[in-house]
Amino acid sequence: MQVRSLSIAIGLAFGTIGACAWAADEPIQPITPAKQINLGMVELGKKLYFDPRLSKSGFISCNSCHNLSMGGTDNIKTSIGHNWQEGPINAPTVLNSSLNLAQFWDGRAADLKAQAGGPIANPGEMAFSHTLAIGMLESIPAYQAEFKKVFGKDKIDIDQVTAAIAEFEKTLVTPNSRFDKWLKGDKKALTADELAGYKLFKDSGCVACHNGPAVGGNSFQKMGVVAPYKASSPAEGRVAVTGKDADRFNFKVPTLRNVEMTYPYFHDGAANTLAEAVDVMGRLQLGKKFTDAENAKIVAFLKALTGDQPNFTLPVLPASTDKTPRPQPFAKK
Amino acid sequence: MQVRSLSIAIGLAFGTIGACAWAADEPIQPITPAKQINLGMVELGKKLYFDPRLSKSGFISCNSCHNLSMGGTDNIKTSIGHNWQEGPINAPTVLNSSLNLAQFWDGRAADLKAQAGGPIANPGEMAFSHTLAIGMLESIPAYQAEFKKVFGKDKIDIDQVTAAIAEFEKTLVTPNSRFDKWLKGDKKALTADELAGYKLFKDSGCVACHNGPAVGGNSFQKMGVVAPYKASSPAEGRVAVTGKDADRFNFKVPTLRNVEMTYPYFHDGAANTLAEAVDVMGRLQLGKKFTDAENAKIVAFLKALTGDQPNFTLPVLPASTDKTPRPQPFAKK
Repeated sequence: MQVRSLSIAIGLAFGTIGACAWAADEPIQPITPAKQINLGMVELGKKLYFDPRLSKSGFISCNSCHNLSMGGTDNIKTSIGHNWQEGPINAPTVLNSSLNLAQFWDGRAADLKAQAGGPIANPGEMAFSHTLAIGMLESIPAYQAEFKKVFGKDKIDIDQVTAAIAEFEKTLVTPNSRFDKWLKGDKKALTADELAGYKLFKDSGCVACHNGPAVGGNSFQKMGVVAPYKASSPAEGRVAVTGKDADRFNFKVPTLRNVEMTYPYFHDGAANTLAEAVDVMGRLQLGKKFTDAENAKIVAFLKALTGDQPNFTLPVLPASTDKTPRPQPFAKK
Repeated sequence: MQVRSLSIAIGLAFGTIGACAWAADEPIQPITPAKQINLGMVELGKKLYFDPRLSKSGFISCNSCHNLSMGGTDNIKTSIGHNWQEGPINAPTVLNSSLNLAQFWDGRAADLKAQAGGPIANPGEMAFSHTLAIGMLESIPAYQAEFKKVFGKDKIDIDQVTAAIAEFEKTLVTPNSRFDKWLKGDKKALTADELAGYKLFKDSGCVACHNGPAVGGNSFQKMGVVAPYKASSPAEGRVAVTGKDADRFNFKVPTLRNVEMTYPYFHDGAANTLAEAVDVMGRLQLGKKFTDAENAKIVAFLKALTGDQPNFTLPVLPASTDKTPRPQPFAKK
């Protein structure tokens, strides 16, 4: 304990060096702000993220289902797509998603750039096409000029669109949670109950999957290890990508960062509360029935994982022109 | 002209006094920033404006159809409501709506506060109820605390909700358009074509209805004065409020501020472009067929009416709690 106190003192004196020394003892590391970001690309990506003209209806943007006012999710069980279609799966948070080993619950996209094109062209989500999206953007001189400034090319293409959205999403990290302050040496940042919850989280084995800076997001695991999970969604997880039967019901472990804001929980959005999610995880993944008191302490710890939320000015989108094709929200086909 | 130049000099020296002297010659006055605003109420109202939990689905907020990234409109012909219902009328811009003589196209709400409760409880829009909205807000301690801080009462009620939204909306004015700079004495703020368009706008009679700081919004007028307008919407306008047959097809004259961003046009959203809108207005309201050159000049003038767009940080909404009723986007009833 004296050694650890010394390392805190060094941490306070020398900044990140000492903080890393402290965090190295723990299976969870602090979130760090995004580095090496192309600011021009971020500003363009922010506009695209908020632009519903990337959907057939002109009504659905990235932010509709990954709402940055609400923890980067839509806070509903499964998302609403074009023509009010019911989505097959719960929208994962975009916050800290740059830390994921892959994107989507089944990891079918290698990175944020590969993910960003998916919903635009998915008939059940934004129901547009990449060709139509490019046509929309090309019809607007202000977009043309901004793409040219950022990418130095005369023509807009979908690679530029997804690269810009991904660059913006890389900025959506949430440092400075109370837990991270504790990790960096501020012993008063957590209450006794929160600390007890963290100890339970480690000692019970939650941390086997929920570790690293994102407290998850870095492995695929079977949903229902000790006992089967009765999902309300038909999604089968990683098998859809690998074709291997062993990957059936394997899903990417979700990040627990900002988990207080990203309800409801699980890939099917079936758990409405953190208490319910902790109870199900304990029983099905660890074969452990947490008492109410234990559950409450773990939930208290989880609520200390909420960090600084995205902080930026709402973007103003360039207006359509006479040449811009109009959205088709109510078209029959 | 020397007298006018003198008044400009005085305007530059003495600020608004001189500017008013200049603008007094014109039927349109500059937009002024909002005054006497309750900042605490504005911040609360901003959250409510962006909170989709005021809808049954948890998906539709005020900002969905009055999108502050897109001129305070949704830029679609008629809006999308709960369960993808097609709205009966084009969503008017919320920008500068505090200057309107009444709210909605038919003026059925006296002011912004009276308007704000409408969409929440409209089965074709947000499909919620005031009681359910209050229940949602009361279940969230952070909202409870903010309402108490702003209104000093222990219970949240719908009057507080609509007052806060209205207070936020009062801040959504758009000063500093190039036309306003010209009005205030900056002769270089407009091009020769834009000035010629403004002269046509006045000389042709457009200004009879589109005048004042909002360039409209201050009277009800018949849609189709010289020749009938064949609307694609069943809306009958002001008669629905007054019951007087003389008010059939009387609609509130829309503001032309930021009109480049608030397409499509008219109460039924039938005109996709400004050129089309100017042509229809000329023929049906004034009995005048503008030449292509005249039309282009008027359009050029109209595009000079775009002012400073809302500039604020995207609000972060307080998370729901275990007690918060969950949204019902796909409920059968």
